[in-house]
Amino acid sequence: MVETAIIDGKAFAEGLRARLKGEVAAYTAAHGTPPGLAVVLVGSDPASSVYVRNKAKQTVEVGMASFEHLLPESAREDEVLALLADLNADPAVNGILVQLPLPAHIDTQKVLAAIDPTKDVDGFHVVNAGRLAVGLDALVPCTPLGCVMLLKDRLGSLAGLKAVVVGRSNIVGKPIAQLLLREDCTVTIAHSRTKDLPAECRQADILIAAVGRPEMIRGDWIKPGASVIDVGINRVSGADGKSRLVGDVAFAEAQGIAGAITPVPGGVGPMTIACLLQNTLTAATRQAEG
Amino acid sequence: MVETAIIDGKAFAEGLRARLKGEVAAYTAAHGTPPGLAVVLVGSDPASSVYVRNKAKQTVEVGMASFEHLLPESAREDEVLALLADLNADPAVNGILVQLPLPAHIDTQKVLAAIDPTKDVDGFHVVNAGRLAVGLDALVPCTPLGCVMLLKDRLGSLAGLKAVVVGRSNIVGKPIAQLLLREDCTVTIAHSRTKDLPAECRQADILIAAVGRPEMIRGDWIKPGASVIDVGINRVSGADGKSRLVGDVAFAEAQGIAGAITPVPGGVGPMTIACLLQNTLTAATRQAEG
Repeated sequence: MVETAIIDGKAFAEGLRARLKGEVAAYTAAHGTPPGLAVVLVGSDPASSVYVRNKAKQTVEVGMASFEHLLPESAREDEVLALLADLNADPAVNGILVQLPLPAHIDTQKVLAAIDPTKDVDGFHVVNAGRLAVGLDALVPCTPLGCVMLLKDRLGSLAGLKAVVVGRSNIVGKPIAQLLLREDCTVTIAHSRTKDLPAECRQADILIAAVGRPEMIRGDWIKPGASVIDVGINRVSGADGKSRLVGDVAFAEAQGIAGAITPVPGGVGPMTIACLLQNTLTAATRQAEG
Repeated sequence: MVETAIIDGKAFAEGLRARLKGEVAAYTAAHGTPPGLAVVLVGSDPASSVYVRNKAKQTVEVGMASFEHLLPESAREDEVLALLADLNADPAVNGILVQLPLPAHIDTQKVLAAIDPTKDVDGFHVVNAGRLAVGLDALVPCTPLGCVMLLKDRLGSLAGLKAVVVGRSNIVGKPIAQLLLREDCTVTIAHSRTKDLPAECRQADILIAAVGRPEMIRGDWIKPGASVIDVGINRVSGADGKSRLVGDVAFAEAQGIAGAITPVPGGVGPMTIACLLQNTLTAATRQAEG
């Protein structure tokens, strides 16, 4: 029975934002203008609207400029592409983010491909996926970046550790596998077609759960002492009829087995916007270096 | 004790080239001109010269046009880039390959990035690495493509099989891991920093050796019945003083344990040029489709 540490992503993200605030001030002093982040939202999905508002608030709080472009649900694809061309050309805009999902009449791949890769702070452009894959400087998707920050904060060097990533999405699973490989982990990517998923998970010094299935990963799938990063955010109905958020890992069962685990909420979630701000500063700095 | 099958890459490559010959004839009949492959060689390294000559010979044999551009060792980087710009613009050229290594005064990354990704038949451009990573149509590096062809020929569906890739180069290890993931394997990437490499290898239904260390992988690292693909080609001195080629796997020890294994030479090696021709036809077909 080990004492399971709770990895406080909220506190870490606060610390990261405080550090960024200092770095943004130094950037602004050096260049005369602050780094700028443009967010494009098409339509008025309530969850997306809340998320965009939070991003803008945190962007301004660390001293950066926030540009919000809110288009109606009816916006045409060519209008979105024209806006992106303007933002690509605008020197005050160092980072561009298109809030997903887009309305069905707009081709998401085409829109993502239209963002200048040097301003692609979500890291979804194929050029950034390729640069990450071949080991060049890339803008890396925010959630994977946050996961690795939490792991390095806890463990120091990750070299030689066995990491098992459950889930192979382009947004989380695949980029986190690339990042862990870059940190010299031995990396296994498991997924819905994996034959003996519990046995794969039990080998993990670092277990990343990114499948989007509530509490699928059970306590006895966890190697004693392992560091568990739970990327899942699933809304479920409790016995009292009220809904609550749970992760992909059975959190209560992991107690006394995992060495450390991120809670849901309050683990990986708060890291995502903080890493978006980090990416915007990284993009601005690289653009300034030419 | 199992009967270990020897995977005959030479025979498979011959069959692939025969099939390609028919498809090239159909392409040429439909479009009026054959697919064309341009190879750029800078300098006169003997091994590279032999390899380029073999490529040209096999290109013509399947009915495609071969364009060889041999530049002196002293060629400047801007001359190579200007040549690539011409080849990118030339409609008779559907595939472009720059033979590596380049002389030290030329920036390899810059040269590879100058090739039109739709003509990048080596699959080394970051856009192709990115497209492979996110699951879009990509031109895939030739050796990994050949390895997966041999595996699918032997095993049919690879779904759910556990694959262990030893080695994480951009040319072999990483792209083969992506391809095996796309085939629904559970994929582990192991490397020099992996803690217990024999134990990782022993889990593999499919074991890919791509480390470039002669006979490093021993017989007792192999799971009985596993399919072993040996990408290594290492020249070693025998007891008789003569040199010979060996793979990364101790071939004699694998007999009676592996279900099947590629020999060195005659396994993966012959597949590489055949897959280059396949990529050239694929590129030409996609370009014609617009």
